Amino acid sequence: MLSGSDLVLSCSTLVTSPGRDGPRLLAITSHLRGLLADHPPGEASLEELFMGRNATSAIGVAQARGAILAVLEECGVPVFEYKPSQVKMVITGYGNADKAQIARMLSAQVKVPEGRVDAHAMDAIAIAVCHARSRRLSQVTR
Amino acid sequence: MLSGSDLVLSCSTLVTSPGRDGPRLLAITSHLRGLLADHPPGEASLEELFMGRNATSAIGVAQARGAILAVLEECGVPVFEYKPSQVKMVITGYGNADKAQIARMLSAQVKVPEGRVDAHAMDAIAIAVCHARSRRLSQVTR
Repeated sequence: MLSGSDLVLSCSTLVTSPGRDGPRLLAITSHLRGLLADHPPGEASLEELFMGRNATSAIGVAQARGAILAVLEECGVPVFEYKPSQVKMVITGYGNADKAQIARMLSAQVKVPEGRVDAHAMDAIAIAVCHARSRRLSQVTR
Repeated sequence: MLSGSDLVLSCSTLVTSPGRDGPRLLAITSHLRGLLADHPPGEASLEELFMGRNATSAIGVAQARGAILAVLEECGVPVFEYKPSQVKMVITGYGNADKAQIARMLSAQVKVPEGRVDAHAMDAIAIAVCHARSRRLSQVTR
């Protein structure tokens, strides 16, 4: 959750318990509905899903994505998607930047909340910042 | 939707318009919520997703599945999954039966509603009948 000036209002990482898909997906959509209620966002940004080497893990990610996209649509939140290389390019100026480079550039650019921000939350913040910048750029160049 | 005696109460095929994923997924979850309200089911059965040759189309199916599983869980409907070969085996006694064989055996075994039942609805009915039979069998042999 970003404010207009790239201040991170809140971020979280949800870990679900291994087991049947239904309860894990419901944990995700319930958590998401809570976030949307706490800080109603104007827009949401997600990483584009690409089919990598591990097709089986991609199914789990795609299922979670489907549940998330349905809730965002239901709540009227427009969704924007970015490829990992676009995110890296916007944050570091280099499409092949590694995690450490992104984290370093990111914490120099945005104010991240106190406390432990794990690598997944850092990824999400990077995607949100990428979206905010891309949006402003497209408004300036329009 | 099956009654206790393998009578098909209702079946439908939902076709969504090409375009962004969000509206298509919301169309699916809204349709599903309507079905669950009209004929509250005791249990639901789905075809197991397997990653075939077309990985990109599998992402779309997995996203739809995730949205569906989250709604079923939210509505407290237990979900059971079957492989296509299990469904064919239960309906026709032969795990490699073709669509025509399944349709013929199925219409001899259950009463399908009047009107046009397309191939997708027929698949869904086959999975539901497979579930109903497997359930009864496991109760008898317990």
